[in-house]
Amino acid sequence: MSQNPKILAVENYIQGLCESNLDKILSLYADDATVEDPVGTEPRKGMAAITEFYNMAISSKITAKLEGPVRIAGPHALFPFSITMDFGESTMNIDVIDQFTFNDDNKIISMKAFWGEENSRMS
Amino acid sequence: MSQNPKILAVENYIQGLCESNLDKILSLYADDATVEDPVGTEPRKGMAAITEFYNMAISSKITAKLEGPVRIAGPHALFPFSITMDFGESTMNIDVIDQFTFNDDNKIISMKAFWGEENSRMS
Repeated sequence: MSQNPKILAVENYIQGLCESNLDKILSLYADDATVEDPVGTEPRKGMAAITEFYNMAISSKITAKLEGPVRIAGPHALFPFSITMDFGESTMNIDVIDQFTFNDDNKIISMKAFWGEENSRMS
Repeated sequence: MSQNPKILAVENYIQGLCESNLDKILSLYADDATVEDPVGTEPRKGMAAITEFYNMAISSKITAKLEGPVRIAGPHALFPFSITMDFGESTMNIDVIDQFTFNDDNKIISMKAFWGEENSRMS
């Protein structure tokens, strides 16, 4: 595990997704955070809306995999990763770059997920 | 080469860096674009400042390599890549995620390069 708290948060996030561990994911967020996934949709604001979002996200079996080093610039951590959602008869793969912006306590205050139709495929 | 104009711009950008081809790089930008590299530094605004920046960047021998798929969300293209700068006696490697934001003509109006000390190493 990394000693850099922002990289550690990313590692815990990926692990939390793979474990469908809602508490682990939510513990990374500040109470007044926003989540925009994908970028271009209406951001979800606050812990209740974020909880609802991740409850939905982990309702299917998810595998998440970091696909390269976490890039750190000031309060931002950006990282390439892939998501596989197993719906039983079919699976969906999405290539994503997430941008986490942290507050001074290293809690995520803004998450933006960059992906679109070019980045998702059913199999 | 990709048919998506934003992905094509990224491919041409990487190629332009490898070829030290200033014209190819600058042709991707709108006249009033901004370049913030790395994020957290003062953005360079306008073609003169951007030309100066890339003249400096390609003054050493650069190799750039796309390290995963280009993520497209609305007007944004984000992509993980690596840069190797050859200074003769030493080389510097940097892992970067760039965010290009395009105008309606698919010219870059904003470039942000996310990387920091965790992402660069001399060898």
